[in-house]
Amino acid sequence: MKRFLDLADLTREEVLALLELARRLERAPQPQALSGKILGLLFLNPSLRTLASFQAGMARLGGSSFVITPGQGTWQLETKPGAVMDGAAAEHAREGVAVLASYCDALGIRAFADGKDLAADLAETRFNAMAELVEKPLINLESAINHPCQALADWKTMDDLGVPRGGRFVLSWAYHPRPLPLAVPAAALHMAALRGMEVVVLRPEGFALPMALMDKARRAAGLSGGSVRETDERDEALSGAHILYAKEWGATSCYGDAAADAALRARLTGWCVRNDWFGRAAGDCRLMHCLPVRRNVAVADEVLDGARSVVQLQAYNRLTAQMAVLYRLLKGI
Amino acid sequence: MKRFLDLADLTREEVLALLELARRLERAPQPQALSGKILGLLFLNPSLRTLASFQAGMARLGGSSFVITPGQGTWQLETKPGAVMDGAAAEHAREGVAVLASYCDALGIRAFADGKDLAADLAETRFNAMAELVEKPLINLESAINHPCQALADWKTMDDLGVPRGGRFVLSWAYHPRPLPLAVPAAALHMAALRGMEVVVLRPEGFALPMALMDKARRAAGLSGGSVRETDERDEALSGAHILYAKEWGATSCYGDAAADAALRARLTGWCVRNDWFGRAAGDCRLMHCLPVRRNVAVADEVLDGARSVVQLQAYNRLTAQMAVLYRLLKGI
Amino acid sequence: MKRFLDLADLTREEVLALLELARRLERAPQPQALSGKILGLLFLNPSLRTLASFQAGMARLGGSSFVITPGQGTWQLETKPGAVMDGAAAEHAREGVAVLASYCDALGIRAFADGKDLAADLAETRFNAMAELVEKPLINLESAINHPCQALADWKTMDDLGVPRGGRFVLSWAYHPRPLPLAVPAAALHMAALRGMEVVVLRPEGFALPMALMDKARRAAGLSGGSVRETDERDEALSGAHILYAKEWGATSCYGDAAADAALRARLTGWCVRNDWFGRAAGDCRLMHCLPVRRNVAVADEVLDGARSVVQLQAYNRLTAQMAVLYRLLKGI
Repeated sequence: MKRFLDLADLTREEVLALLELARRLERAPQPQALSGKILGLLFLNPSLRTLASFQAGMARLGGSSFVITPGQGTWQLETKPGAVMDGAAAEHAREGVAVLASYCDALGIRAFADGKDLAADLAETRFNAMAELVEKPLINLESAINHPCQALADWKTMDDLGVPRGGRFVLSWAYHPRPLPLAVPAAALHMAALRGMEVVVLRPEGFALPMALMDKARRAAGLSGGSVRETDERDEALSGAHILYAKEWGATSCYGDAAADAALRARLTGWCVRNDWFGRAAGDCRLMHCLPVRRNVAVADEVLDGARSVVQLQAYNRLTAQMAVLYRLLKGI
Repeated sequence: MKRFLDLADLTREEVLALLELARRLERAPQPQALSGKILGLLFLNPSLRTLASFQAGMARLGGSSFVITPGQGTWQLETKPGAVMDGAAAEHAREGVAVLASYCDALGIRAFADGKDLAADLAETRFNAMAELVEKPLINLESAINHPCQALADWKTMDDLGVPRGGRFVLSWAYHPRPLPLAVPAAALHMAALRGMEVVVLRPEGFALPMALMDKARRAAGLSGGSVRETDERDEALSGAHILYAKEWGATSCYGDAAADAALRARLTGWCVRNDWFGRAAGDCRLMHCLPVRRNVAVADEVLDGARSVVQLQAYNRLTAQMAVLYRLLKGI
Repeated sequence: MKRFLDLADLTREEVLALLELARRLERAPQPQALSGKILGLLFLNPSLRTLASFQAGMARLGGSSFVITPGQGTWQLETKPGAVMDGAAAEHAREGVAVLASYCDALGIRAFADGKDLAADLAETRFNAMAELVEKPLINLESAINHPCQALADWKTMDDLGVPRGGRFVLSWAYHPRPLPLAVPAAALHMAALRGMEVVVLRPEGFALPMALMDKARRAAGLSGGSVRETDERDEALSGAHILYAKEWGATSCYGDAAADAALRARLTGWCVRNDWFGRAAGDCRLMHCLPVRRNVAVADEVLDGARSVVQLQAYNRLTAQMAVLYRLLKGI
């Protein structure tokens, strides 16, 4: 494995092998495996779990890491090709990314969606422009429409909990004051489909996931014996569900139009996950969320602090899953 | 030792043993002692010494660390229980702290006082809400009214200098443009009392330390043969003093009332420690300060740059004292 | 070697030996050479290459590092002697720098020019005031008029490329929206002279490098068989040139006068390096730049993305050159 940019770049069997490696490293730590290796971490957007778990993961494998956060101790990075750089950014990603890659053995890059042009975001225009500058092993720390580290951690979390392969996975939109990117819903949707689950996307009108993402998930489901459909009927969606995966995202019917998005979401503050959502779910239906989560806005305290919530296990599995990714990328085995 | 949150959680003998360990590690470094161990450092407030010395201390013992600073590369953290999170903070400490703890072998948290409600700050409401989420070894990097790492370093500094156990320790208020927290005066007061010193709190009217803190120090003094009293008479306080420990703090008579505090301190700019303060002190009376210090505002250049000042030794002992804490917490011996 | 503050502190032979060490460490890595050693990095100004390459370099040699960035997670540092600190800065460099030095085995400091008083900047008043507080090995990470790490990396880059010792090195002014410091032009000028090159400083009127810098370079050239002159005739300067080293800097004829500087530079936007600059240069004339570079403002895409550009190799050599500096400072051999 030379890059970890999209779970869809791996076959189902390769994902299973990676998860097996994660479990093996969890059971039998290898504190010297990556001795002398250096991970560079470039964050164009904020982070807590990714920032901490990658540093911790490298350290647990005997390696080290450095963090670069443009605009905070480092020059702001321009990412637009051909830009006449007479504004705030003092450095272009063409230089910055290539230079950082030359200092480390593997590089991770986080670059959220611009959130203006859906086609450009779906094409990963910005992330790919940086990725093509890097010849070293490269990790997607969350791009416009992908978050493969989260997806791998989520898969492992369901395995850890014994969630059946064919179980019902409801990916539900949740309220947030602002439109958030599609990266996590896109990654979770594809991951659950590739795992072979019965995937239901539950979302209000105007928030349907783009057809390209739905199609990609359906292709994965086709290979794995799973299925993918969408609805705006909460009770029906949750009926018998094993997982409620809550996630906030922006209106896709008016992508990039902040005013239209705000008008749409203004009447959706009820999409805060509460205990009464689970009435028709399976008895042990779990609440998943990638975090950070706005308490009592996207998910209520009563759910996050209750027995259904597995968000801590998901976050912990960022560490275990990423250690497998680092091991595979840097040991080459 | 499972946590290092308050020097008062340790007996005098346990503190002495910790200081002995610090001296032993200073004489005979153990560069592999914490190999493979990871320290997480969560800073909700600025830091220089704590930030640098904990990273350096882990490295000197063969371990590693990562730093998380909410609002700088990481989401702002909400700490209020039950908050409806529709404001600036994207993540709640309930998730953030627990997640960070799951990535490391020990966690340090810095969370200054809110400075609004004295009872809440004295009860360490905010720090304790985070501390109870952590099952891993936990270190208080400065909370509302405590700074045990500073207290331990200060004790060692006095030992290093041969300051007599029963010597006079004057904790003096010093001027600062704004009201600062009670953490360091509270910690220094208790530390000196537990060391067995003759403690005199020198402060202007309106700045008396809360009775709960004075009582706690008196209990420690009772066990150690020391004493604690307070005064606003500088010459009398410093007469025969071995230590002048200067520290800025907010008015306690109007805690949380910025305007009243400002009015009180406006006429106290003379409380800047100068050489002429030491007229009646012991010949080798030392100036201690936890740093950072505003030169020529809280303490004059002539004192900081003179022979009395031991602020550099105090700061250096943050490293030596904390290495003992880390060793004890992570080696368990 | 106890300090690395100015390439001029070393003889030409000592520089050559340092470059030989850099090449040796490049060929035959020593991943345990600095095991247990700690590098402190204090950045009073932004950085990407210096920040990442020093962390990576320490890690590649088995050591570790910590980063302190005043104003970002750490108190703002006052650097003026005798200041009455009633403003934004909570800590003075007199304390901060000395404390950081006490935690590490070597300290690096970055402190750009104030850009107000040319004499003070030429005298390195600010940097030297901090440097004299440090007894540990000290590294200049860029001061008011020096950047020895960049100079060493640039020298190695020319060696790597086989640029002849007596080749023509054109240091050319380039446009930038604001006046930038003299550190890199000063360091590059002296470095090329000490290497023995035919140095030509190409700059518009008002941007001549200060006589003190030209004289220093001429002394170095005198010892090395090189030469130093200046001109504003681009074609003549570039005729037969082996290197075009582009760099932005502020007007020296009105140093510290922002309005006068802006008026001067307003008519110099044509000083953006383009392919047609190289008409009379040697066939393999290289474009060097220390980075960050504003694309299509200081240097055009067509040059940076073309075969002449060696800016990536320069940046990579920051790592290799600094590893030699760290090795020499911390191993003492």
